[in-house]
Amino acid sequence: MLPTPPIALLMTGDELMRGDTVDSNSATIAQALVAAGLRVDYKITVGDDRALLLNSIGDRVSVSRILIINGGLGPTSDDLTAEVVAEAAGRQLVEFPELADTIRNWCEERGFQADTANLKQARLPEGAEVIANPVGSAAGFAVMIGACLVITTPGPPRELGAMLPGVMALVRQHVGGGSGSTLRLQTFGLGESAIQEMVHNDIADWPPEVTLGFRAGLPMLELKLVIETPEHEALQRRCLEEMHALFGDHIIGEADVTLAASLQTLLRERNMTITCAESCTGGLIASMLTQEPGASSVFEAGFVTYSNAMKHKLLGVSESTLEKHGAVSEPVVREMLGGALSASGADTGVAVSGIAGPDGGTPDKPVGTVWFAWGGPNAIKSKRLLLPLGRDIFQTVVAAAAIDLIRRDLLGLPDVPHYFRRRDPQ
Amino acid sequence: MLPTPPIALLMTGDELMRGDTVDSNSATIAQALVAAGLRVDYKITVGDDRALLLNSIGDRVSVSRILIINGGLGPTSDDLTAEVVAEAAGRQLVEFPELADTIRNWCEERGFQADTANLKQARLPEGAEVIANPVGSAAGFAVMIGACLVITTPGPPRELGAMLPGVMALVRQHVGGGSGSTLRLQTFGLGESAIQEMVHNDIADWPPEVTLGFRAGLPMLELKLVIETPEHEALQRRCLEEMHALFGDHIIGEADVTLAASLQTLLRERNMTITCAESCTGGLIASMLTQEPGASSVFEAGFVTYSNAMKHKLLGVSESTLEKHGAVSEPVVREMLGGALSASGADTGVAVSGIAGPDGGTPDKPVGTVWFAWGGPNAIKSKRLLLPLGRDIFQTVVAAAAIDLIRRDLLGLPDVPHYFRRRDPQ
Repeated sequence: MLPTPPIALLMTGDELMRGDTVDSNSATIAQALVAAGLRVDYKITVGDDRALLLNSIGDRVSVSRILIINGGLGPTSDDLTAEVVAEAAGRQLVEFPELADTIRNWCEERGFQADTANLKQARLPEGAEVIANPVGSAAGFAVMIGACLVITTPGPPRELGAMLPGVMALVRQHVGGGSGSTLRLQTFGLGESAIQEMVHNDIADWPPEVTLGFRAGLPMLELKLVIETPEHEALQRRCLEEMHALFGDHIIGEADVTLAASLQTLLRERNMTITCAESCTGGLIASMLTQEPGASSVFEAGFVTYSNAMKHKLLGVSESTLEKHGAVSEPVVREMLGGALSASGADTGVAVSGIAGPDGGTPDKPVGTVWFAWGGPNAIKSKRLLLPLGRDIFQTVVAAAAIDLIRRDLLGLPDVPHYFRRRDPQ
Repeated sequence: MLPTPPIALLMTGDELMRGDTVDSNSATIAQALVAAGLRVDYKITVGDDRALLLNSIGDRVSVSRILIINGGLGPTSDDLTAEVVAEAAGRQLVEFPELADTIRNWCEERGFQADTANLKQARLPEGAEVIANPVGSAAGFAVMIGACLVITTPGPPRELGAMLPGVMALVRQHVGGGSGSTLRLQTFGLGESAIQEMVHNDIADWPPEVTLGFRAGLPMLELKLVIETPEHEALQRRCLEEMHALFGDHIIGEADVTLAASLQTLLRERNMTITCAESCTGGLIASMLTQEPGASSVFEAGFVTYSNAMKHKLLGVSESTLEKHGAVSEPVVREMLGGALSASGADTGVAVSGIAGPDGGTPDKPVGTVWFAWGGPNAIKSKRLLLPLGRDIFQTVVAAAAIDLIRRDLLGLPDVPHYFRRRDPQ
């Protein structure tokens, strides 16, 4: 890694100190910096306390090139950021007339008159550079304190997000860097350590100019290929190609694509519709599919058949199959899918039946056992997995795996990928 | 507020500095402290950097009574916490034989032999007090540095959670405090500012000894009544009673109860079953209901009928009703619910049809319009709301409101509560 200029964050707010709010803002800011080839090296979090804020600013401006302050820009008396920055900078707080007008208009558009509290937000340190807030009333601002550029940003995540491009422009201006870039990939079915091992074992000459990063989500794992200058773009592309060759069936797509969005695209390209018959996931597969806009063009109906009686009545699973094999069995999921395909007229679909727990396990079928059936009317496949993950995570992973099985089926990818081989109880 | 002894947190890990991980651990620790009448006053976050860690520890032990360090206890060379604490305390790192045995057993149970990296986790500062980790291999420990008790905790949230009682026992031992208590309430349908306004206007003599706190979740809002000594328990109870009188129909329950769990209990008490017929929520109502263990005793089947054809075919909604009124209409949701009740044999149920967006809105029925029908076969009620919240939040709030409508119905509560009156487009 190239040396980067020291950048500090100062997060403020009593709600952070009480644990009432989980601070996602500092991750948002850190990611924007990383994407620009920069890095936070120190972060302080304190409550709405004048002395602590002043001390923390004083500590950091002496050793940092940039200090980004988040929070404390609101209208109430707890919101101290503008006045402590003014004091630390040795400047007066003065009203910025244009900003006052913006605030007056903002309030009027919302049907009320700006009062003293609102207009407090127009009072910034003399000579500060205003950072416009396109979605709220509190503007950010930037001032130099010594050799350090101090940038203030609002606490509401939506407002921070909207102002981040303006903030990053100032950061780039000040520290010059920021020619790096990040390629983000969404993957499903492999863990961070499995990917690291595969890359380590199978990509012999991984270039040190490309940093491999991870961001664990559930059910997806995001991979990042970070370079610090555009000169390394060819290397970044080469790493991407090698990863596609190594475990491309686990790569769902780039940027922020989800499993459901990628499946919707595949179905739409093929002019196909999908259905689902759910027992242990209780509606989560349908919910994931319909969370993405545009679902109505590929999804008409889903069935949540939690009881045996409803598996029989709504999906036509035979009572003797249920009695002989139990609800969590290969014949039952196959009949569930058959029934759902025929009732909905869909071209493809998936059915699941399993034991989410905490109760209901047996030595034969422990908690975490799940049967999948997937495919179209004349090509139903089925598979058992053992996923002893706790009820919540079990439901999420089973629903995601169900969507992934259809995705793999449509793409002609192997339906027994790495994560199946590891989880196969047989 | 009573003065509290200064307590600092030091969070470590490069993943925090890159923004790859959102730090929820510090909120977890802060909440445990608040529940004990204590408070974090300063938090530092740094990467896996020996010099920064040493400096930060040095800074904080001189001004804090307690310093809780989180992260950096793992087996890899990046995990520096034990050695920097040893250095800051002027102690040697030595192997703790009992801890080494525990680690060897832990590895063996997982089918592999402990190696040098694993056993590094048994090397702690001489004389440290071990804090057992019931769910992982990395133990925490505590040592005094000057007058400050330094406590180390592991980064994985599950391990931190499991060790927190042991940590809090040490904290209480050291600073003596911890006689406060927090009463937590889950509410639905009122915002933070609405509740603050109601409390301010209608509870004239709110005692200053009881602090009202909030924790925004989606769809629930958690209220907290915090007292700092057991002497104030009667006041805390009085506040609770006044809040019940003021907006008790919005209080779902205490501690961590969810809407679905509270509804399950009500249904079980009445020996009733429930069904749902979903269009715009796409399975989310069923998914919420079945996320809670024990769902099978009250829920047999749910229907996700996304297209008009399926509303007709699966739920018997008449084609002329669909044509005349459109899918998002009162007659359609009432017929959807009637069909779902009759197909499932459930005693009560809910049906929703709305426009989640971003597309599909009209001047007459803008994005965010949703019709609900709820109740049993002979007592179907219906209501329209306008919730222009963006697709994700719309789906979550509509599903939660659907569950809340049944809850209100079973309890005989008004079905036009505060949040309906405000959102009623008529």
